[in-house]
Amino acid sequence: MDDSTTGPLPAGDLVLRGHALVDELMGVRTLSEVTYLHLAGRLPTVAQAAVFDAMLVALIDHGMTASVLVSKLTAFGAPNALQGAVAAGLLGVGDRLVGSIENAAYLLDDLLSAAPTGAALEDIAEAAVEAASAEGRILPGIGHRFYKSLDPRAGRLFTIAQENDLDGPYVDLVRMLSESASRRHGRPLVVNVTGAIGALVNEVGLPWQAGRGLGLISRTVGLVGRLLDPDGVPIAEVLAAAQARPSR
Amino acid sequence: MDDSTTGPLPAGDLVLRGHALVDELMGVRTLSEVTYLHLAGRLPTVAQAAVFDAMLVALIDHGMTASVLVSKLTAFGAPNALQGAVAAGLLGVGDRLVGSIENAAYLLDDLLSAAPTGAALEDIAEAAVEAASAEGRILPGIGHRFYKSLDPRAGRLFTIAQENDLDGPYVDLVRMLSESASRRHGRPLVVNVTGAIGALVNEVGLPWQAGRGLGLISRTVGLVGRLLDPDGVPIAEVLAAAQARPSR
Amino acid sequence: MDDSTTGPLPAGDLVLRGHALVDELMGVRTLSEVTYLHLAGRLPTVAQAAVFDAMLVALIDHGMTASVLVSKLTAFGAPNALQGAVAAGLLGVGDRLVGSIENAAYLLDDLLSAAPTGAALEDIAEAAVEAASAEGRILPGIGHRFYKSLDPRAGRLFTIAQENDLDGPYVDLVRMLSESASRRHGRPLVVNVTGAIGALVNEVGLPWQAGRGLGLISRTVGLVGRLLDPDGVPIAEVLAAAQARPSR
Amino acid sequence: MDDSTTGPLPAGDLVLRGHALVDELMGVRTLSEVTYLHLAGRLPTVAQAAVFDAMLVALIDHGMTASVLVSKLTAFGAPNALQGAVAAGLLGVGDRLVGSIENAAYLLDDLLSAAPTGAALEDIAEAAVEAASAEGRILPGIGHRFYKSLDPRAGRLFTIAQENDLDGPYVDLVRMLSESASRRHGRPLVVNVTGAIGALVNEVGLPWQAGRGLGLISRTVGLVGRLLDPDGVPIAEVLAAAQARPSR
Repeated sequence: MDDSTTGPLPAGDLVLRGHALVDELMGVRTLSEVTYLHLAGRLPTVAQAAVFDAMLVALIDHGMTASVLVSKLTAFGAPNALQGAVAAGLLGVGDRLVGSIENAAYLLDDLLSAAPTGAALEDIAEAAVEAASAEGRILPGIGHRFYKSLDPRAGRLFTIAQENDLDGPYVDLVRMLSESASRRHGRPLVVNVTGAIGALVNEVGLPWQAGRGLGLISRTVGLVGRLLDPDGVPIAEVLAAAQARPSR
Repeated sequence: MDDSTTGPLPAGDLVLRGHALVDELMGVRTLSEVTYLHLAGRLPTVAQAAVFDAMLVALIDHGMTASVLVSKLTAFGAPNALQGAVAAGLLGVGDRLVGSIENAAYLLDDLLSAAPTGAALEDIAEAAVEAASAEGRILPGIGHRFYKSLDPRAGRLFTIAQENDLDGPYVDLVRMLSESASRRHGRPLVVNVTGAIGALVNEVGLPWQAGRGLGLISRTVGLVGRLLDPDGVPIAEVLAAAQARPSR
Repeated sequence: MDDSTTGPLPAGDLVLRGHALVDELMGVRTLSEVTYLHLAGRLPTVAQAAVFDAMLVALIDHGMTASVLVSKLTAFGAPNALQGAVAAGLLGVGDRLVGSIENAAYLLDDLLSAAPTGAALEDIAEAAVEAASAEGRILPGIGHRFYKSLDPRAGRLFTIAQENDLDGPYVDLVRMLSESASRRHGRPLVVNVTGAIGALVNEVGLPWQAGRGLGLISRTVGLVGRLLDPDGVPIAEVLAAAQARPSR
Repeated sequence: MDDSTTGPLPAGDLVLRGHALVDELMGVRTLSEVTYLHLAGRLPTVAQAAVFDAMLVALIDHGMTASVLVSKLTAFGAPNALQGAVAAGLLGVGDRLVGSIENAAYLLDDLLSAAPTGAALEDIAEAAVEAASAEGRILPGIGHRFYKSLDPRAGRLFTIAQENDLDGPYVDLVRMLSESASRRHGRPLVVNVTGAIGALVNEVGLPWQAGRGLGLISRTVGLVGRLLDPDGVPIAEVLAAAQARPSR
């Protein structure tokens, strides 16, 4: 049963933010264009669509992350409810992990809109790093445990943004935050993939609140793929490893 | 923090089903192509990508469905955890509603692979309808409470499939199931959107198990968009309506 | 399969916070005593157990709340996955609704531990109401849309606390917050059930962080009961009511 | 805010299956008695309450199970949403793991109600084991990877049932299934904790559908306790172990 059958289906229900689903979107606009429409309330330009598509692709899967492990463990216990395994994996997309996109997007938006007219980006970045440092806060989107000169996902995203003339002030600012933080802390703190996407959320014209949503959309693709994959990590071994430790 | 920072990030973790995420996918392949890759284990042809993209777009949002209502109600109680509101909405993508895509995809795959060589599709359909009828089962993907001559989403999907030479035996069979069921029950039972997508899951070369996953992916887009939408149904009124009834 | 079969089961795994599950707890301690043990790290006194039990009972079910509606809608879409319907209902136990227990428990703990020695509770309450009012904040646990002279659940909990000599400073303080807020705003703002439980979380010796957990435990009982109940609100009608409205 | 404030609160909303929450239940009936009432639609006898309480205690926590690991990993990613971590852990309470209680309860109910009057329990068990064996099915609730002569949780539950005169035909039958299966397969297949609880669901007069619900209720207690526990397994190490493996 299609779920629209649970009630009458007014014509308006097949309209997505003012565009007719069947006639104007299906087969006319790509999945990422329609996703942009649904999140922003308007269709993207060609440049926005290109950058937005790469942002979503960048987030699909980053190896055996906590979310993938959670989904696999959940499917092990409840093998007949794929939706439960995906939902469980998404529940970890919160403040600490992928959700930091939202925090980075908010920070950059906030810094730029609060800055006095004509303020130099270098000064804005310097002040933000100093303030965070004084309060013992870590800047979202800056620093990576593994990458020390470049997060290749961030580098690629910035190239795509440049090719589409969308490497504006938010991209500049996040790079300066990285440079300023690296200087202050005396060690390389790169713009990581969530910092790059946080900047680009703003560049492509989405509200910062959309940041966490992007992570949820891409990770759903990632988790569904992992759950359908017949290979992959043997869950029983992961469990046995955890159980071999004293449990409290 | 990017979640890959919780452990070392071997180069292999930025490889998606054999393709380098940064160099071969981001900015090179579209979101729906990479989604197909992650679900099927191989990249789609141009035709497969076109049809697959339309399938995902078709499922994003169908009005004020149960899933949307669940997400909105959940966000009302826990406004600072977008991931929880999306996860709650996905948990209803089960056997009865969008999950019927999986059942339709399985049924069509099963009927065609079990049929003797050279069997006419009409006969296969006729026998399947008869068997379902005898056991009091409803065929997944067939019939709609509102649409009586055509589900416009199904019609559009079949057109796109035809334009891409992907309207093969599964599309033919689901149409014949609709005709045969309509005759037997003496009332119009159209191929609905989940029936059409169930057929096309097979036509584009995905395993039937991917059916429910497609619903989860598209609905995540739909739910995120609904949750970011500042307008929309006033939840307090929905609750009041439910509470006005005797509660048991 | 019992899930302990997925790995070796060391004897220590049947020990709950230092107490042998089989020999010291099952049939010896009640469900609420063992719950207290698991949350507090120690067994309750007789008085603590009596009050704690009533707190959990008080929260089980409050009619057709948002959580119940979410669970019912989810079960409608995915009828074969009870765990998904319960999980969906719990996801709305967040900052705004039942989660306010945690906020009330924290506020009371914070006010009492920050107050100078010998400070009068009246003055602490007065200052807290003034500070909240100045910042436009609402005090958690205070005020109810329906109850104007007494929330009967709060009244009963305070009586039970008194009978067990556990109506100490946290109970006094939450009552004074109610009185002070009522005076300032010129309308009755009662201690509601979450305010009462927030106070009692402290009185029975639990950390304030346990507040949201209590809500989750009791609501799981409530949701499971509602889902097993063959009567109850007809979900199709609720959906139809929501769908009858313009959806954006 | 208390969630009943989102709408008017009719007096009937504080009635649980015909019993006034405030006057007849809080402080009068224990948590497990009210839980029984909410699941069964009637209050338990003293004997039923004693056995039911022990069943719930038995299921709270069995060490570092998959559910606990899932909850801990989820809290790691989304530390400010306890409800999400608990919900994720519950989503694995499905067909394979704790959900097998439901399957065991159903099997025993089905075998006894389908048996001809006067049939010997031995014969019913023998036939059921033979049928399962012929179809390659495993009997739910029978066998344990670690326990070979007795699952101590099952043993204790049966003792408590006996002390309360509730060790009737369902308990006898599950024991005979264990004996018959052990003989047929030539190795010890004990009644495990889910088999024992499956039998006792019937003995205490609950419908078999309540089986999975019991697991959800007890595990919510278990997961909340684990999440509040400041000690416990270091999640970063578990993740690192999983990530050290080739991820596909």
